[in-house]
Amino acid sequence: MKTTFFKGQTMQTTSPAVSKTDALTSEVMQSFAHATDPRLAQVMGLLAKHLHAFVVESKLTKEEWLRGLTFLTASAAITSEERNEFSLFSDIMGISSMVDVVSQPEGGTPSSVLGPFHNHDSRLRANGSDLTEGQAGDRVWFHGRVVDADGQPIQNAQIDFWQNADNGLYPAQDPDQDPHNLRCKIACEANGSFNLLTIRPHPYTVPTDGPVGALLAASQRNIWRPAHYHVIVSASGYVGLVTELFPEGSAYLTEDTVFGVRPGLVVDFKPCHDAAVAQRFGIATPFLEMSFEFCLAKQG
Amino acid sequence: MKTTFFKGQTMQTTSPAVSKTDALTSEVMQSFAHATDPRLAQVMGLLAKHLHAFVVESKLTKEEWLRGLTFLTASAAITSEERNEFSLFSDIMGISSMVDVVSQPEGGTPSSVLGPFHNHDSRLRANGSDLTEGQAGDRVWFHGRVVDADGQPIQNAQIDFWQNADNGLYPAQDPDQDPHNLRCKIACEANGSFNLLTIRPHPYTVPTDGPVGALLAASQRNIWRPAHYHVIVSASGYVGLVTELFPEGSAYLTEDTVFGVRPGLVVDFKPCHDAAVAQRFGIATPFLEMSFEFCLAKQG
Repeated sequence: MKTTFFKGQTMQTTSPAVSKTDALTSEVMQSFAHATDPRLAQVMGLLAKHLHAFVVESKLTKEEWLRGLTFLTASAAITSEERNEFSLFSDIMGISSMVDVVSQPEGGTPSSVLGPFHNHDSRLRANGSDLTEGQAGDRVWFHGRVVDADGQPIQNAQIDFWQNADNGLYPAQDPDQDPHNLRCKIACEANGSFNLLTIRPHPYTVPTDGPVGALLAASQRNIWRPAHYHVIVSASGYVGLVTELFPEGSAYLTEDTVFGVRPGLVVDFKPCHDAAVAQRFGIATPFLEMSFEFCLAKQG
Repeated sequence: MKTTFFKGQTMQTTSPAVSKTDALTSEVMQSFAHATDPRLAQVMGLLAKHLHAFVVESKLTKEEWLRGLTFLTASAAITSEERNEFSLFSDIMGISSMVDVVSQPEGGTPSSVLGPFHNHDSRLRANGSDLTEGQAGDRVWFHGRVVDADGQPIQNAQIDFWQNADNGLYPAQDPDQDPHNLRCKIACEANGSFNLLTIRPHPYTVPTDGPVGALLAASQRNIWRPAHYHVIVSASGYVGLVTELFPEGSAYLTEDTVFGVRPGLVVDFKPCHDAAVAQRFGIATPFLEMSFEFCLAKQG
């Protein structure tokens, strides 16, 4: 490099364009090197590196950069307490899902996206509860266990469960539903087991009235998520699991618009003729049966 | 891959974690492949690829992802017509600057960031105008030419010029300034020449009252931009140039928080004793002289 780097206005650069981009990337990464938190320095440096690599590889034009900025500004305008367009963008870009993949502990059940419809205030209900409460929908008996990496039951595990109703809507989208409809927490038995009666979930679309919807339309992308149950499994001493279960054969299983489907999270819905279970819940046979074993990884 | 990919809940994946991330990245890139505009497919695919690479290399945790989402949501809350936190984030991450670098046409004067203070409605003033209008500040006689790649004058070129005042503020930040203070458009002479009288510009800080300011503080980064003039140069048949000129010796030249300084954009401010010029503008000698030749690349 010449010593007149910042001086000569008529100086010709002799290095190729790739060096200029590398120099800029280094400069930006270096600008974070003195962060008080070393992890902040690392994460921001890597974010700069990869965003720069995107601009370089795509040869992004100023007009395209401006379109991106317009996209973010329009996303800002539609974002509120109830609706976060940035979270949706993260989901449809597979970023939320990638965070799941890279933070997946060894040996546990795969995690999947949390989605926007989780409420922290779900009620604790008795194990074996009936969540259907007379509403429409195919009856599903969901039962299973929470175990550790050795297959041993975990004591004091809890599941937090939520899903959409037979019309495809969550309570937050549907004023006709009780806010606690088809959601609950259940404390598992000492042997790790739990069971509940619920209904079959349904596919639904992500919100399409914002910039992300326009992007999906311009990309001719599927806007549907396959039917799924949401489950958070937690137990003291174990890594918490945020995941989803997908009924085998559901539409959109291979084209989930938020990329949440994982091998091992697709489950059989089998017709069940168990008269004792039918009698306990007051339902006809055959009903649908779904069984799943959640495996939690130890903390630390 | 097993044929039971979406079936067995107890299936063990035999491939290492890197394959899972590659598979997810491919899936997301492929989801954009059917966009009506092939360039949209390309740009979004590459954006997904590089954002995924960021998540993988940084091993981003869910807590960090959530902090990022909180950052974007807070940026949304502060963004308005007058204040765009996303644009500022792009600037301080060197992304705006990288777009400049990769879109730089061969042989032209380097471009630099536009910044938030450009107005489209600047008044056309006569070549040789005095923009100082009695305000405080060191007098600077700024003159030069607009030429093509062969050094030949470009006829019908126009410069659009703006800067901050002696208090470091732009009109948009300072109700005491006329909105047209220290800004104008000038039509160059047939020989490509232009000149005007203005004042020395000053360093200033980017806005620090939002999430970007908090990020800069946590990163212990400089929040100042070096003193500069903004210039847009345009002429029919040539690629428009958005650039900045930096007085030699300015503070923060090597640590511009938006990474806008380029070799060839740092210019001498020389004391000038030209009595004719002093008389024309009614100023004392010596005043400061700054000369610059803008080179535009041909379109197409």
